[in-house]
Amino acid sequence: MKKVGILGGGQLGRMLLQTAANYPVETYLMENDANAPAAHLCKHFIKGDITDFNAVYEFGKSLDVVTIEIENVNVEALEKLAEEGIQVIPHPSALRIIKDKIKQKQYYKHNQIPTPEFVITHSKKELQNHVSFLPAVHKIGNGGYDGKGVQVIKTEKDIEKGFDAPAVLEKMVVIKKEISIIIAVSKNGQTAIYPPVDMMFDPILNLLTYQICPAALDESVFYKAEAIAISAVKNLNSSGIFAVEMFTDAEGNVWLNEIAPRVHNSGHHSIEGNYCSQFDMLWRILLDYPLGNTDVIMPSALVNLVGDEGFQGAAEYIGLNEVLAMDNIFVHLYGKQQTKPGRKMGHVTIISKDKQELLYKANQIKNTLFVRSK
Amino acid sequence: MKKVGILGGGQLGRMLLQTAANYPVETYLMENDANAPAAHLCKHFIKGDITDFNAVYEFGKSLDVVTIEIENVNVEALEKLAEEGIQVIPHPSALRIIKDKIKQKQYYKHNQIPTPEFVITHSKKELQNHVSFLPAVHKIGNGGYDGKGVQVIKTEKDIEKGFDAPAVLEKMVVIKKEISIIIAVSKNGQTAIYPPVDMMFDPILNLLTYQICPAALDESVFYKAEAIAISAVKNLNSSGIFAVEMFTDAEGNVWLNEIAPRVHNSGHHSIEGNYCSQFDMLWRILLDYPLGNTDVIMPSALVNLVGDEGFQGAAEYIGLNEVLAMDNIFVHLYGKQQTKPGRKMGHVTIISKDKQELLYKANQIKNTLFVRSK
Repeated sequence: MKKVGILGGGQLGRMLLQTAANYPVETYLMENDANAPAAHLCKHFIKGDITDFNAVYEFGKSLDVVTIEIENVNVEALEKLAEEGIQVIPHPSALRIIKDKIKQKQYYKHNQIPTPEFVITHSKKELQNHVSFLPAVHKIGNGGYDGKGVQVIKTEKDIEKGFDAPAVLEKMVVIKKEISIIIAVSKNGQTAIYPPVDMMFDPILNLLTYQICPAALDESVFYKAEAIAISAVKNLNSSGIFAVEMFTDAEGNVWLNEIAPRVHNSGHHSIEGNYCSQFDMLWRILLDYPLGNTDVIMPSALVNLVGDEGFQGAAEYIGLNEVLAMDNIFVHLYGKQQTKPGRKMGHVTIISKDKQELLYKANQIKNTLFVRSK
Repeated sequence: MKKVGILGGGQLGRMLLQTAANYPVETYLMENDANAPAAHLCKHFIKGDITDFNAVYEFGKSLDVVTIEIENVNVEALEKLAEEGIQVIPHPSALRIIKDKIKQKQYYKHNQIPTPEFVITHSKKELQNHVSFLPAVHKIGNGGYDGKGVQVIKTEKDIEKGFDAPAVLEKMVVIKKEISIIIAVSKNGQTAIYPPVDMMFDPILNLLTYQICPAALDESVFYKAEAIAISAVKNLNSSGIFAVEMFTDAEGNVWLNEIAPRVHNSGHHSIEGNYCSQFDMLWRILLDYPLGNTDVIMPSALVNLVGDEGFQGAAEYIGLNEVLAMDNIFVHLYGKQQTKPGRKMGHVTIISKDKQELLYKANQIKNTLFVRSK
């Protein structure tokens, strides 16, 4: 059996390992927290710091394949592993581009991929030179994650919220919709494209609150989005799963927002909604099996369960019985013992042929199920 | 989080633990083989003999709930645990009836549940008294499993194949179909009934080779089968998942063959084919959540992958790439390193609205995918 290692032990690792049990594979996982969501589901758990060169190199050097479930890993060690013949998916060169918001934006520009206009800044003070560029979004070059490392700078007054570090100042697009397309690339360069997803965000936490698949898009917007997503992924020259997040505007333009080089929240519905889930698809890539079928089995909606405001401590799921009594829902709780405001604690997928039912139930779940502390 | 223990670490435990990761539960598993299919997927693995009183009692006494994935466990220890307030699902009294083929047949008779006529035998010699009862099937009282412990006694000449131990001699029914219905019973006695499954057996290994859900049954046969299954399960007075295997004959009669008090091979299609899989359903019962929806998402067929004749050793999956390239299939391999003839190594589920496609692909998979040794 192939030895495959995962760096990171969060919910993405957890769902990857749930699926791994369908395949002949010996799983390894490195993570600092032995109680992390994925830690107990691998065959071999290695406690270690995924941002440390030696830890990552030692972890990977006796494996056949190494993958990630979070970008914040030691890329230098992955580069050395790749040089030594270990398969690293995504390729470290792709990870290097994506991990750094500045490199990521430059990559889009270089490849003529439509993305909101931007300038690069190196300090908070420098933002003063770009007042005429506002309103804009300031995104820190390195270390941003899950809504952190992003600040909206509407006017000069907001400049104090900016980052005093290398960052991208991105012109604000008047967004009509946020969409995501997940693309799978096999080791021999074959691609499989998932149907697009409509994403609805919480404006305060900048966390996805619910999504619908397939997205309701005009045909011309759909084809643009697909072309942009394919181009953005193919030019990375890396196998793996890539989530391409995009904006559409009122004029029917599509703008690339960002890429994640891994399984992604915007693909969780694929576990029940599509023939081959994003997790299944990644295992097919890692283990050299044919790519799976991305077709929709039934349209789906997905509600993220995040820790409720004002509650911190041992997690409790209020309303879980009511939601589990619904006919066409699938609950995924991530096994995190502690909740805090905005923490991703689980998700619920709804499948139905009737879009109104998807929206109705998504809202019903949002108004029924809460993660609070005891 | 509730502490739930599973006795046994085979593929049923493996699929149970894949699903457990959707729920807030701390999982424990006892099994003698640390490399068993389910062993690495629990939170706490306890190496131990599930047929040993002390091992089972020590395993269960600090848990909230104990369940099984195989009948061959120490029932006395489960009885003591139940007496001491540990929830044991299925209840040990049900397990006691089902584990012993003689008690099981007497239970059906006592509850007027249609089942093939039988006599109880205590030795091979005694079979000579029942020549006029032949053709019949001899089933050993205790210890039969997966086609072992069953012998067909067509004529007097076959008597030498009979069991020299307490056993049931069951009159052979001219079978039209074998079907299975899975029933879930919650702790407060609510039931949920899965649609029936058509089962096609390998006459040599007595192993399921493929199944179709929902079964094609005349309405009157369907209602009889459902009534028999419900009656057979409800009279056990136990919560849990129960697979009720039945025969139908040319006259439209339905006969109960046997009950398994656990998740069952005839329910594996429910992972993709039904809203709530049998594994999900068992967790709902164990954790006191509402029962799930047993409705079919799409009709399904299931092909068991068993070790090919003439091959024994490190398992290899011939034709796996071809099968994984099919559009609407789901492969589940059980992670067993060693194959031997007839060993259950995995299964493939096909979903389609078109029954002809289900049959066509089931046969295609049977003629493509083989488990052999390297």
